[in-house]
Amino acid sequence: MIGMMPSHLDELITALRCLPGVGPKSAQRMAYHLLQRDRAGAQHLAQSLERAMASIKHCSKCNNFSEQEVCALCASPKRDAGLLCVVEMPADLLMMEQTQCYRGMYFVLMGRLSPLDGIGARELHFDRLVKRVQEHSCEVILATNFTVEGDATAHYLATLLQSQGVKVSRIARGLPVGGELEQVDSGTLAQAMLERREVLA
Amino acid sequence: MIGMMPSHLDELITALRCLPGVGPKSAQRMAYHLLQRDRAGAQHLAQSLERAMASIKHCSKCNNFSEQEVCALCASPKRDAGLLCVVEMPADLLMMEQTQCYRGMYFVLMGRLSPLDGIGARELHFDRLVKRVQEHSCEVILATNFTVEGDATAHYLATLLQSQGVKVSRIARGLPVGGELEQVDSGTLAQAMLERREVLA
Repeated sequence: MIGMMPSHLDELITALRCLPGVGPKSAQRMAYHLLQRDRAGAQHLAQSLERAMASIKHCSKCNNFSEQEVCALCASPKRDAGLLCVVEMPADLLMMEQTQCYRGMYFVLMGRLSPLDGIGARELHFDRLVKRVQEHSCEVILATNFTVEGDATAHYLATLLQSQGVKVSRIARGLPVGGELEQVDSGTLAQAMLERREVLA
Repeated sequence: MIGMMPSHLDELITALRCLPGVGPKSAQRMAYHLLQRDRAGAQHLAQSLERAMASIKHCSKCNNFSEQEVCALCASPKRDAGLLCVVEMPADLLMMEQTQCYRGMYFVLMGRLSPLDGIGARELHFDRLVKRVQEHSCEVILATNFTVEGDATAHYLATLLQSQGVKVSRIARGLPVGGELEQVDSGTLAQAMLERREVLA
């Protein structure tokens, strides 16, 4: 068996397993695919990996990925520094921006509290978040996901920040726009009932 | 929105989509994972891709991946040049070698006939296989998979090679070793019945 599989192929298959969700079988399939059908794509991927790892750091203000010390959004004078929206991932920030209804700043946790995976307050840089809020006093809007872990993260952060006298709110839960009662899951409906808002005449 | 996502991050997410089975969402997840948790793995992957693409070619005899013009297996004087086993993929060759019951040569198709994907006789280098068989007259054993496409490939190859006067056989279908009639699927059982062998006293 020795020497039958080229050693650089073996090495590539092992290296591909650093990608999340890629086991031995898919790593092999990927390596074969690249070697046989997409060598140009593989070269491009190698260069993109090198370039991204060399150039992408975290923004010192919002913790989002950035090629600058302070990202374009944090550097913009058009944003309202009195509002700080906390999201889990960069993709959440992009979603929020797409709504075009928020003009404040962000803090990207790059994760959520997940004790089983060893991700706690330290890994998510809660200290930097608290320092940021203390320095420029602002209102914090928690926009973590409405999952068990997102809820726990929001709860922890709310307790932490309120103990410092910071005004904290959380984005609303309820029926989606255009949603019908018949279609929605009962958990969401129950929550919408609990969090009902007074109708102002 | 412009300038909010670092351009090298965008580029990396696009580049990751050259991997089979990776769509926009998983590409994003992979990029975030590498940037946040496994920068060393990403560097190693980049180098492995470069090295593999630069060094791995196809063996001129068996068409398997190889770093030499002729791979170690084809170059070995211990193999029986009178037998040529045709398999679909390098992984199939490895499985066959693990049985330690075959000492002949191989030809790796690197695929199977699949007209819908544009993979025909030309893409699988059937001409090189025929030339090889004509040059050193040998018996051909077809060991493509017992799938619809593998069966079609075997049928096509058998017709092609037999028209050249080559002796062609196919590996047997039937119950697995240790298999029980009650457990096996009816297709396999029917095939085992059809392909029954005379018991020699």
